[in-house]
Amino acid sequence: MAAALDVIGIGNAIVDVIARAEEALLVTHNLAKGSMTLIDAAQAESFYAAMGAGVECSGGSAANTIAGIASLGGKGGYIGKVKADQLGQVFAHDIRAMGVQFSSKPGQESAPTARCLILVTPDGQRTMQTYLGACVELGPEDVDPAEIQGAQVTYLEGYLWDPPRAKDAFRKAILAAKAAGRKTSLSLSDSFCVDRYRPEFLDLVQKGDIDILFANEAEILSLFEAKDFNEALQEARKLPGIVALTRSEKGCVIVDGPKDEVHVVDAAPIAKLVDTTGAGDLYASGFLYGLTHGQPLPVCGRLAGVCAAEIIQQVGARPQAPLKDKLRAVLA
Amino acid sequence: MAAALDVIGIGNAIVDVIARAEEALLVTHNLAKGSMTLIDAAQAESFYAAMGAGVECSGGSAANTIAGIASLGGKGGYIGKVKADQLGQVFAHDIRAMGVQFSSKPGQESAPTARCLILVTPDGQRTMQTYLGACVELGPEDVDPAEIQGAQVTYLEGYLWDPPRAKDAFRKAILAAKAAGRKTSLSLSDSFCVDRYRPEFLDLVQKGDIDILFANEAEILSLFEAKDFNEALQEARKLPGIVALTRSEKGCVIVDGPKDEVHVVDAAPIAKLVDTTGAGDLYASGFLYGLTHGQPLPVCGRLAGVCAAEIIQQVGARPQAPLKDKLRAVLA
Repeated sequence: MAAALDVIGIGNAIVDVIARAEEALLVTHNLAKGSMTLIDAAQAESFYAAMGAGVECSGGSAANTIAGIASLGGKGGYIGKVKADQLGQVFAHDIRAMGVQFSSKPGQESAPTARCLILVTPDGQRTMQTYLGACVELGPEDVDPAEIQGAQVTYLEGYLWDPPRAKDAFRKAILAAKAAGRKTSLSLSDSFCVDRYRPEFLDLVQKGDIDILFANEAEILSLFEAKDFNEALQEARKLPGIVALTRSEKGCVIVDGPKDEVHVVDAAPIAKLVDTTGAGDLYASGFLYGLTHGQPLPVCGRLAGVCAAEIIQQVGARPQAPLKDKLRAVLA
Repeated sequence: MAAALDVIGIGNAIVDVIARAEEALLVTHNLAKGSMTLIDAAQAESFYAAMGAGVECSGGSAANTIAGIASLGGKGGYIGKVKADQLGQVFAHDIRAMGVQFSSKPGQESAPTARCLILVTPDGQRTMQTYLGACVELGPEDVDPAEIQGAQVTYLEGYLWDPPRAKDAFRKAILAAKAAGRKTSLSLSDSFCVDRYRPEFLDLVQKGDIDILFANEAEILSLFEAKDFNEALQEARKLPGIVALTRSEKGCVIVDGPKDEVHVVDAAPIAKLVDTTGAGDLYASGFLYGLTHGQPLPVCGRLAGVCAAEIIQQVGARPQAPLKDKLRAVLA
């Protein structure tokens, strides 16, 4: 059956608040650079007061990936929970304005729309603190099996393990996708997130629930508790699905264990690193766009690299200019 | 008496929603490029739905100017009305995070915090539609004469003529400033705004209520109903105060009528025009920072030009990097 959508994503629907910060602020607040920490409403309020002036952009890891796919000209759908408040309206507007199908009902009585307070240090690295707000309402009732089965790939973020019932939504989506012979994909999201849920993530990828796994170096080391990248790579080769391993300026390694293939792809060049927010998310956009448009894995990796390069040269994780203009250079 | 503040601004407190757009969208909606149009809540909702994905940044013309002064290392204060809603919290956070004194009480039962829907066309020009929301609540009760008298300069935006009672706040502030021997300054804001209130603006500047007037070419032509820039310039020379006339890439002309001086200042060079939002506002930041720090008019003009050049090379009207790092090049 022809798919209505290329990729449907499920994730925490979040508005990012991005501010420049000196390294000292990370030290004062005991934040590990590049990581994502969960905070509650009171912590969010107190940390926001300590933060510099910011810019608000729609975010959320899987939502960024789907927005990227739409920006490439692909057909995307998204499932995630906001509240019917001003930031929830911003989130819903922005993802629909990209052409993404987004029909999740906003909460009326829930906590406010989720916010991610992002500090961008002078080296361009981002450090995130997330107040999950309305995201904790996401549950299996928000997943329509028919919508999942209408997508070539169902894409899930590891962060879904944090809110209480989102993993049930995640599992329902995987079952629906598999039942229809569709593909599933997971991003490991963050190495600390992998630390929190290692046995469950390992189980998912080892038993074949995940067809395409995305991980950066810290995340794959954490998943396999490996001492170095090569050890983690050898473990990844044993998995039953495809694994895309991102290595920042070193490019990426794409592993197809069943076919015993390993593709090493260079990073796309950039003029100036501005803000790494969304690098992994947009890598997944390029990769999944390629995969759902019949491209071989090395081309998927190059497309992924071009999208990641584009997003780290701007503030925020949603592409400001259409990514489809970047396709020609890779596909020609 | 030494001043507690360098500059206090009064203006419409607004959150900007900035999105890239093609010229065709301006044509479809009959919008004059570079202008500001007032819209109501229903129009704001319907136009927002037609707009692309955006980025939210605190804005408001005078608020941008004061944020710029703080970014230069100056002491700024701001008076303006938001609602106690999510966007109002964003506005208050951002201006305070810059170090600006902002004690205006947010409305509890008012309309929502004001929004300005900004379309940035591929040529970098911005076209704005403003929903005034909570700004219509601003009145003379929000102006504390002691706070005004504690500032070297009181800075007002012409846009204050749009909400019903803000002009009363404006007049109260001018009286307070003048009574304490402080200076007053006005930005003409927008040529269509000048069209709406020409007699009142002419009266203000001709009778000496305004010590420093800011206007771009379209605004000064509109004020004097002049046929060309030279004619407007000759009219400006007759005014009892200083007039800073901005001419985009042609730089600026600073007129000191009483001293019979005209200073022509080149524009600061830029690498790439990204978004002109805030160009005039940040010009005023640099100028007033210079003036309140004892700089002669040509240096004020150069500082102004450097600040304007900085802001048009980024998205949004609030400086992302501290402007004080730019001072040395001009003042050394």
